[in-house]
Amino acid sequence: MDGKFHVVVLGGGFGGLTFCKSFQSEGTRVTLVDRTNHHLFQPLLYQVATAGLSTPDIAQPIRSILSDREDITVLMDEVLDFDLAGRKIVLRENTLPYDYLVVALGGCNSYFGHPEWEAFAPGLKTINDAVRIRSRVLLEFEKAENCAAREETAKLMTIVIIGGGPTGVELAGAFAELARTVLQNDFRHIDPTKAHIILLEGAPHILGNFPLDLSQSAQRQLERMGVHVRTSTFVKDIREGEVELKSGEIIRAGTILWAAGVSAVPLTKKLGVELDKAGRVKVNPDLSLPGHPEIFAIGDLALVMDEEGKPVPGVSPAAMQMGRHVAGIITEGIRFGPKAARPPFKYFDKGTMATIGRSAAVAQVKRIHLSGYPAWLMWLFVHIVFLIGFRNRVAVLLNWAYAYIGYKRGARIITTGAPGTAPAQQNNWQP
Amino acid sequence: MDGKFHVVVLGGGFGGLTFCKSFQSEGTRVTLVDRTNHHLFQPLLYQVATAGLSTPDIAQPIRSILSDREDITVLMDEVLDFDLAGRKIVLRENTLPYDYLVVALGGCNSYFGHPEWEAFAPGLKTINDAVRIRSRVLLEFEKAENCAAREETAKLMTIVIIGGGPTGVELAGAFAELARTVLQNDFRHIDPTKAHIILLEGAPHILGNFPLDLSQSAQRQLERMGVHVRTSTFVKDIREGEVELKSGEIIRAGTILWAAGVSAVPLTKKLGVELDKAGRVKVNPDLSLPGHPEIFAIGDLALVMDEEGKPVPGVSPAAMQMGRHVAGIITEGIRFGPKAARPPFKYFDKGTMATIGRSAAVAQVKRIHLSGYPAWLMWLFVHIVFLIGFRNRVAVLLNWAYAYIGYKRGARIITTGAPGTAPAQQNNWQP
Repeated sequence: MDGKFHVVVLGGGFGGLTFCKSFQSEGTRVTLVDRTNHHLFQPLLYQVATAGLSTPDIAQPIRSILSDREDITVLMDEVLDFDLAGRKIVLRENTLPYDYLVVALGGCNSYFGHPEWEAFAPGLKTINDAVRIRSRVLLEFEKAENCAAREETAKLMTIVIIGGGPTGVELAGAFAELARTVLQNDFRHIDPTKAHIILLEGAPHILGNFPLDLSQSAQRQLERMGVHVRTSTFVKDIREGEVELKSGEIIRAGTILWAAGVSAVPLTKKLGVELDKAGRVKVNPDLSLPGHPEIFAIGDLALVMDEEGKPVPGVSPAAMQMGRHVAGIITEGIRFGPKAARPPFKYFDKGTMATIGRSAAVAQVKRIHLSGYPAWLMWLFVHIVFLIGFRNRVAVLLNWAYAYIGYKRGARIITTGAPGTAPAQQNNWQP
Repeated sequence: MDGKFHVVVLGGGFGGLTFCKSFQSEGTRVTLVDRTNHHLFQPLLYQVATAGLSTPDIAQPIRSILSDREDITVLMDEVLDFDLAGRKIVLRENTLPYDYLVVALGGCNSYFGHPEWEAFAPGLKTINDAVRIRSRVLLEFEKAENCAAREETAKLMTIVIIGGGPTGVELAGAFAELARTVLQNDFRHIDPTKAHIILLEGAPHILGNFPLDLSQSAQRQLERMGVHVRTSTFVKDIREGEVELKSGEIIRAGTILWAAGVSAVPLTKKLGVELDKAGRVKVNPDLSLPGHPEIFAIGDLALVMDEEGKPVPGVSPAAMQMGRHVAGIITEGIRFGPKAARPPFKYFDKGTMATIGRSAAVAQVKRIHLSGYPAWLMWLFVHIVFLIGFRNRVAVLLNWAYAYIGYKRGARIITTGAPGTAPAQQNNWQP
């Protein structure tokens, strides 16, 4: 390394990318590794799944974001293992030595010990997931239009979403709108407004992280859009095309989506430190790994407490704040060596929000609770402001304006073959 | 059919869609069948393959285009066979009886008796093809950045395009621009401007359908952009990652693309009428099938002569004119029965053009020959005016303006996994 420090960052999500943007230290090289070639604006991923936006609207090549940073090398590669003693990262194509390591690999869907459910109820984590879900739902409507049997048509037009957190609520609202407004006049044999959108939640309320009044408001807003919200409802089993509830009831559905649980990526197990039940790394207050002051874990896979002693939530503002915090610590470490200060991470909660649909949302900022149109306006504003990259911002705005005015969605393109050209499972789920 | 006439249209391309839009006859039902759910603006497909545009920019749901036409039913289904005697179409999911049939299924790539080449040198016909080609080329650059061996890097950064017609020329120019301007600063280990773009053509000139001065101009414009144009060069064999020429020379390349030949879809063989070598249906002057006045073939799969006795070319304006012509004949046929007039189809040649890149193109309108900037402006104007659907037009314009001003391309998203996560062939070519 010709005497230079080398910082390796694993993951180009909000945490890793914010680290790279904030960190700059004379003579230090940075390598950012990501499995994909793009940074994903995950808060809008559900819009790709529901045909509101197209993939380049919410994804940007990481290389392009960092192209003016000569000190940063971007590698598209996959992390296989850590060699903590040798200070090396084992990638599929390379092995990378590091002086400092920032682990920002994020999370994945968790099926509560039922990994076999994933095949029947995919979750929404990547661009490919979103494109697959979009194709799947649109194909089910196409099949329903081709189908004479009434009962089968009803099944094809049923979408079950498991999990009433923000992702589940956003998916349910967006699919209800898709069926009731966008697709309304497109079919001759079926009536898309008769689609069943069912949102299942185990707890007594959806959006459990929100204050009760906002949870209830969100439920009312969803029901007004025709979504069947079923709380205190537990899933016992998921099979191809059907969900079995604990009560024994069976719901048949053309599309089943999983939005019930996330955990840290399984790779955290290889770090050899204590994890919580969701696989998150129990980091020191400065976000470093216990016993490894040269390694930091940030974003969704880090477990750290806020000032009230509650875990910092797995949201993008938290990941970005952590990225900035660690960039400061490593800069100081390189400048002053082991005697550098290592302040603890402090989470600044800017509030939370969830969008439900056209003019429908809930938002909480400190003690202010908003719902309906004002919350939706705030959601719109925040998401447009924080969209990284000018092109995306303009494109997304135009898309939304077009959708809002015209009740149309441009991204309704099925990128798979015709129905039945391959075994159903294989065909429908190819990206 | 409750006494009503039923017109079945196979294919939602330029021919089929124009037919549907022009045809309207009191009490007649129309069913449009397409394998996909979208109409594709095929002249811009190469822009998706080269990361200039995203899929919804050039694809629009057929249902949405025809949603105000209550008389038209759209089915997403695949044609398997014709029952000409029984006047029925056999689809995968249904069987459709018809009174009039319009066959507008278009063409597919033709490998001159070497179908095995398709696996190594895909062509560009569908949205999925374009997305796969884009992912493939971008992945090869990512692999090159990860690769230490120099010779291997050179191979990964070589793109061979076989066929110097408009599609081949457009692909070569767009890839040259992608490498030389857009990707220029994005890598640290490789220099994308050193990418080899090789265009192979068997004839002595590229763009054989154009006047000689324009062919030569196109070649000069391509060479100025760094494309190696090799005319009078024949391909003997194509294998994984290499092209063998008739001379015995072997060119190794990370990406090999086929733009050398198209033929009508194989289904034309089932129509039981005379075909030409490219599988096109030799139709009557009114575009009907010999012996079947109730069946018409239009677009790329129809062979009909223009007023000079030359075959009408397989371009979108011809397909649209044919769609309009047949709409008129069927309307008359329904109104007046067998004694209705059946005028012959007359092709109005509006000119031809091919774009090469930024401010580079060639165009011919009657006796006017344009090349360079004026031809490019004309190309831009024509393509924007003819893009179906307002949303697309604005989005495409914005994308192009952004690309033109910023030398950026927003659609550079690889929608496959990381390199090497699956067997190369399978991984790289998944959409």
